[in-house]
Amino acid sequence: MTDGRIGQAEGFGDLETPCLLLDSDKLTANVAGMRDRLDRLGVSLRPHLKTAKSLDVARIAMASPAGPATVSTLKEAAYFAEGGVRDLIYAVGIAPQKLDRVGAIRRRWGVDLAIVLDSVEQAEAVAAWSRGNGDPLPVLIEVDADGHRSGANPRDADRLVAIGRVLEKGALLRGVLLHAGDSYGLSDPAALRAAAEAERQAALAAAAILREAGLPCPEVSVGSTPTARYAESLDGITEVRAGVFMIGDLFQAGVGSCGIEDIALTVLTTVIGHQRDKDWIITDAGWMALSRDRGTARQAVDQGYGVACDLAGRPYPDLIVRDANQEHGILALRPGSSAPLPDLPIGARLRILPNHACATGAQHDRYHVVVNDRLTGAVWPRINGW
Amino acid sequence: MTDGRIGQAEGFGDLETPCLLLDSDKLTANVAGMRDRLDRLGVSLRPHLKTAKSLDVARIAMASPAGPATVSTLKEAAYFAEGGVRDLIYAVGIAPQKLDRVGAIRRRWGVDLAIVLDSVEQAEAVAAWSRGNGDPLPVLIEVDADGHRSGANPRDADRLVAIGRVLEKGALLRGVLLHAGDSYGLSDPAALRAAAEAERQAALAAAAILREAGLPCPEVSVGSTPTARYAESLDGITEVRAGVFMIGDLFQAGVGSCGIEDIALTVLTTVIGHQRDKDWIITDAGWMALSRDRGTARQAVDQGYGVACDLAGRPYPDLIVRDANQEHGILALRPGSSAPLPDLPIGARLRILPNHACATGAQHDRYHVVVNDRLTGAVWPRINGW
Repeated sequence: MTDGRIGQAEGFGDLETPCLLLDSDKLTANVAGMRDRLDRLGVSLRPHLKTAKSLDVARIAMASPAGPATVSTLKEAAYFAEGGVRDLIYAVGIAPQKLDRVGAIRRRWGVDLAIVLDSVEQAEAVAAWSRGNGDPLPVLIEVDADGHRSGANPRDADRLVAIGRVLEKGALLRGVLLHAGDSYGLSDPAALRAAAEAERQAALAAAAILREAGLPCPEVSVGSTPTARYAESLDGITEVRAGVFMIGDLFQAGVGSCGIEDIALTVLTTVIGHQRDKDWIITDAGWMALSRDRGTARQAVDQGYGVACDLAGRPYPDLIVRDANQEHGILALRPGSSAPLPDLPIGARLRILPNHACATGAQHDRYHVVVNDRLTGAVWPRINGW
Repeated sequence: MTDGRIGQAEGFGDLETPCLLLDSDKLTANVAGMRDRLDRLGVSLRPHLKTAKSLDVARIAMASPAGPATVSTLKEAAYFAEGGVRDLIYAVGIAPQKLDRVGAIRRRWGVDLAIVLDSVEQAEAVAAWSRGNGDPLPVLIEVDADGHRSGANPRDADRLVAIGRVLEKGALLRGVLLHAGDSYGLSDPAALRAAAEAERQAALAAAAILREAGLPCPEVSVGSTPTARYAESLDGITEVRAGVFMIGDLFQAGVGSCGIEDIALTVLTTVIGHQRDKDWIITDAGWMALSRDRGTARQAVDQGYGVACDLAGRPYPDLIVRDANQEHGILALRPGSSAPLPDLPIGARLRILPNHACATGAQHDRYHVVVNDRLTGAVWPRINGW
């Protein structure tokens, strides 16, 4: 223990490294901040559970133990339904082969599990399944906010109405759903406010088309962490889906959706070597523990594979994970830095702030819960896979 | 079923997607090829199990059910020991906190689990642990072949001998170990042959230093898939560790370590949408199923997040996963391609060749075994985590 800071948190000493630490105070504050913001804007929060994939986290993020919430896989849907959540949207375009599983989850747990789609082909399969199984599946039509990924053009009345008309023959049209994914590429507050407004306008345009055609559209669901954070008006929107906001990460900090000090997730790691002539410190958190995500490489500040912090969670000046192999992280100062390299001997422990909470979390099967630099003793399982 | 090729392999129809398919014939052929090569060069193979993380795969890759083999985590060590493997090297620099777990694995299963280190500090901790526990731990000194990562300079006699002298006080010096990781950045056969020879020379230099000092060095262990594939002489080397060779991936194909047709691993995925004005096909294999690995981005041919193949495993001309979100893969033709976009309707299935078998495998908990385009019915579990 040659670095006085290490002694602060010897409670971490029993943990096998690498492992995930989740600061429950930061998590709770991030959720409260988003909920307050959306309350002021008059919309409800349907948290996306794809980042945390943990029932313990979901119970902090959701308005009630029954939901509502959003999931990215049917495995998540079954897991959260088993845990008592009763109002879910599976927010990835449906394939016909998955409808039996959707129906089985709905039946087994009595959960209102809605699906999304953006084509007449899918609508036909869903309507036929609904009729054949006597279970009218609730459906949101996915609309494309910004050319990022899936979704019908929000102003393509022919397509939207055609989908709605097909769904009427058995399924339950519940509304429209958007995800302004291109907001992840922004960092200027004015541009983020504009992206949020564009997402809202696209949603309203699609909803108006359905309603003018006499089709139901009770839900107008938007969501991405950056637009949720920057929206100035959500008039006409019924709910916001967002997920990574509750945990935060270096990428979102680069966008401006959170501060580095708000990030609730770190990877605990142990020093296993040095290359002293190169000023490298080698740890046991490689890309398997941190994920291969290098999202910050395209941002103004490239954080490598993550930012190295002491056990209290304070970043060491300019010390990042400069490179990573499967089970080796190579810590070094940022290029050009004149900061001192901390003295971190073999066996010293530190914490790495991740680029992307969704990707880093997925490399692990549990969270060790901390408040600041102390373990609470709680271990929260998380799920992966499909 | 508008594409005649889809009908070839309807046996995949019952699988939930995304999921891993592993071609056991290709796996077996890749192992046989490497073993023949190393037999001709007069060295034994100690397969690295970090890629496959599966006992079923290990039994094909190892010379006997008892090993030898290499692992990258102590969880792998325990898992393979439980499965009958008795000769293992944990080939990541040891931290003192991990010695109790090393000892527990050795005791519980009677496994000869060796560790690696590259510093006097670590050697002191290992020697002290060995004395204190009456269990002389077998140790290989890690040597740096090419400046890639960890390891002592192979010509730094003071450091190597100092480590050896400390180990003599309780532990068991078994030899030297190298990994020519920089070979992953090459693609020219002459450069790969030179990298393999440099790795061999570094190993011999370090071994000679130990032996000249009267220290034991029975094992001289080298290994990386590219150098194992290109070495012309392994005289003086006792064993080769390599892992990804048995499965192969697009990155190794880019290096020249395998052909695309040798790759045994694919991700089965289902079409869930289209953006027809952009010629995008959207699938349910996003980066969660494929991993965030973009290793081919630095190679001559950037394969995006993977190459799209029909169900028989034949690549569609120029069709790659151009972008990926968490649960969405966006297929599109390579920039500038004039190939036809295949007609892949909603619900069609296809297979994605991965950039990096180690990273893609780690996103899943099992392999569905296939031979060509047919499921064998076998499901091989794999492990993750630490």
